[in-house]
Amino acid sequence: MNYEEMLRRELTLITPADEGAMARAAVYQGTLAKPPGSLGELENIYIRLCGITGTLCPGYTPCRIIVLCADNGVVKEGVSVTPRSVTAAQAVNMTRHCTGMSAMAHHFGDQVQVVDVGIADEYHCPEIVNRKIRPGTRNLGREPAMTRQETAQAVWTGMELARRAKAEGVAVLGVGEMGIGNTTTSAAVLAALTGLPVEAVTGRGGGMTDAGFLRKKQVITRALALHRPDKNDALDVLSKVGGLDLAAMCGVFLGAGRYGLPAVIDGFISVVAALCAYRLCPAVGDYLFASHLSREVGYTAAIEELGLAPWLHLGMRLGEGSGCPIAFRVLEAACAAARGMATFEGAAIDDSYLNEIRGKDCF
Amino acid sequence: MNYEEMLRRELTLITPADEGAMARAAVYQGTLAKPPGSLGELENIYIRLCGITGTLCPGYTPCRIIVLCADNGVVKEGVSVTPRSVTAAQAVNMTRHCTGMSAMAHHFGDQVQVVDVGIADEYHCPEIVNRKIRPGTRNLGREPAMTRQETAQAVWTGMELARRAKAEGVAVLGVGEMGIGNTTTSAAVLAALTGLPVEAVTGRGGGMTDAGFLRKKQVITRALALHRPDKNDALDVLSKVGGLDLAAMCGVFLGAGRYGLPAVIDGFISVVAALCAYRLCPAVGDYLFASHLSREVGYTAAIEELGLAPWLHLGMRLGEGSGCPIAFRVLEAACAAARGMATFEGAAIDDSYLNEIRGKDCF
Repeated sequence: MNYEEMLRRELTLITPADEGAMARAAVYQGTLAKPPGSLGELENIYIRLCGITGTLCPGYTPCRIIVLCADNGVVKEGVSVTPRSVTAAQAVNMTRHCTGMSAMAHHFGDQVQVVDVGIADEYHCPEIVNRKIRPGTRNLGREPAMTRQETAQAVWTGMELARRAKAEGVAVLGVGEMGIGNTTTSAAVLAALTGLPVEAVTGRGGGMTDAGFLRKKQVITRALALHRPDKNDALDVLSKVGGLDLAAMCGVFLGAGRYGLPAVIDGFISVVAALCAYRLCPAVGDYLFASHLSREVGYTAAIEELGLAPWLHLGMRLGEGSGCPIAFRVLEAACAAARGMATFEGAAIDDSYLNEIRGKDCF
Repeated sequence: MNYEEMLRRELTLITPADEGAMARAAVYQGTLAKPPGSLGELENIYIRLCGITGTLCPGYTPCRIIVLCADNGVVKEGVSVTPRSVTAAQAVNMTRHCTGMSAMAHHFGDQVQVVDVGIADEYHCPEIVNRKIRPGTRNLGREPAMTRQETAQAVWTGMELARRAKAEGVAVLGVGEMGIGNTTTSAAVLAALTGLPVEAVTGRGGGMTDAGFLRKKQVITRALALHRPDKNDALDVLSKVGGLDLAAMCGVFLGAGRYGLPAVIDGFISVVAALCAYRLCPAVGDYLFASHLSREVGYTAAIEELGLAPWLHLGMRLGEGSGCPIAFRVLEAACAAARGMATFEGAAIDDSYLNEIRGKDCF
């Protein structure tokens, strides 16, 4: 199978959000008994959900966090303080609701789908969905992380997961990950895509000594010089300095666009994957929602190119998809307000006093 | 009854959060299988809730938003575009779950307690708790808004509402309001308490023309010059340029400290009331939580004095307590993560690799 060809065909089928539905949603928002714009981003969220679903009653449940798990050969360079074995261990723990993200998701009743797209170590856990493409990537410090075919297959796999979610009645997607070393790959991909200096996009990840942090930046700089990824070709960038988790996450975001599902971005790794999706198909931007401001440097550059601003300022940098459970509640709140609020007429409030300020940006 | 004397006695009974419980909670957080500090503010929230409740299993449900409703005589000066009648209309609508805050609270199963501490207009609604102190304040543009006794009574009323919430098994409080003209009183109180220029603390509130906005600032400036409130006496400030809603909200925050309940601040008006409570009794600061960054100028000065930072950046400025339903979910998430996550031992992860970075602020 030529995954890239299949993928390219799907990308042509991704359409922007429904502008007519958004216009109707905006008019409806204006009839609700509140000062115009006073619910801020909650109003925009509702309007965007209407655009995605083509209805004024967008669904917001069930929510599913798809967690793409894979190992990264670059950990051999000593870029992470955490041993590789933690990828498999935490993937298993996620199915038991006992990691940070999965404990929150379980509490709120959100679905967590843990998917192995490239875990290197052995484990026994039938709850993990097996879509392993290869057992971890090659060491990007020395050779390209993946072939182009492997990369396209990982992206395709992510799109398929979104398709399945849609078929199973999921209303909202979240995109998380588990993969020791993936802040290194994410920083490398972001530097390659944007041309930003390695310094500006590389953080300490899951914890790192000063020496290890320096090594991480050196490895990324060397890899970019060695492989010269093409910044205008996200698949080339992903294959040379990315990872199977990043590529599959990119695929889930593309699938969200393809199948008409809102998709919540988590933190740094998730936003880099979203940026890859956006570069492959800008129309997918209409389907993306930010969640929290990651403490990893680099997050901001990526989210700004997507034209989004994070809702939650909580100083989190756990990954896994841990920003999604709270962000899902923000989406829910936006829908609850829009659906539950009375119109000026229903609230028995004469709104003519607003005529003077309506339509002016005087707030 | 001498409300001020009763109040002063209660204030001496407010104690800081339990430092021992917080220390134990911090140790417990350190055993959870994640990079130290990676859940950011969610870790702090859990630790603070443990300090408030004196247990490592703090409750987070049910949540109750207490909405203090009152009219402000200053609306006679033309400081608000919205007619006074909207206070009573929206108070009634809140009991029907059809305002922004109450629609969201109803969706999430949070309690909403609407309390009349000074609505001027007539209405019929048995669901509104009647604690009316007087039908609206006097016009602070010409005379002090309230007597000192009325002010102390309003604060006392708020404390009583917190006591009742505790007795009824409420785990978390939110503090909202409804009162046309109360961004004017809040700005006046904040300017008086902090000495900040009127320009720096006055926003457009629920919507305002340029001419109305100018008038609002002039009225505040004139009132401060006329009444010369004592910045070191929050009761004096509240009585001269505040309102019944603000004073009663201040009382709910004090009651949260007195009865050991976490209390969530909403937006601008709510944070000014919280600041009054903090000035009356600094120990109450341990019980306060921020929710969202209000778009009203002045919010930031007040929240910073409280040593808090808002979690939600949603551009909201509706009031009512509308930031509370989402903030309650953040508290819930913090507890769910702390309770649900495995320890390193339970997660079968050897955490010795963290020894090198533990205790260092290297993130």
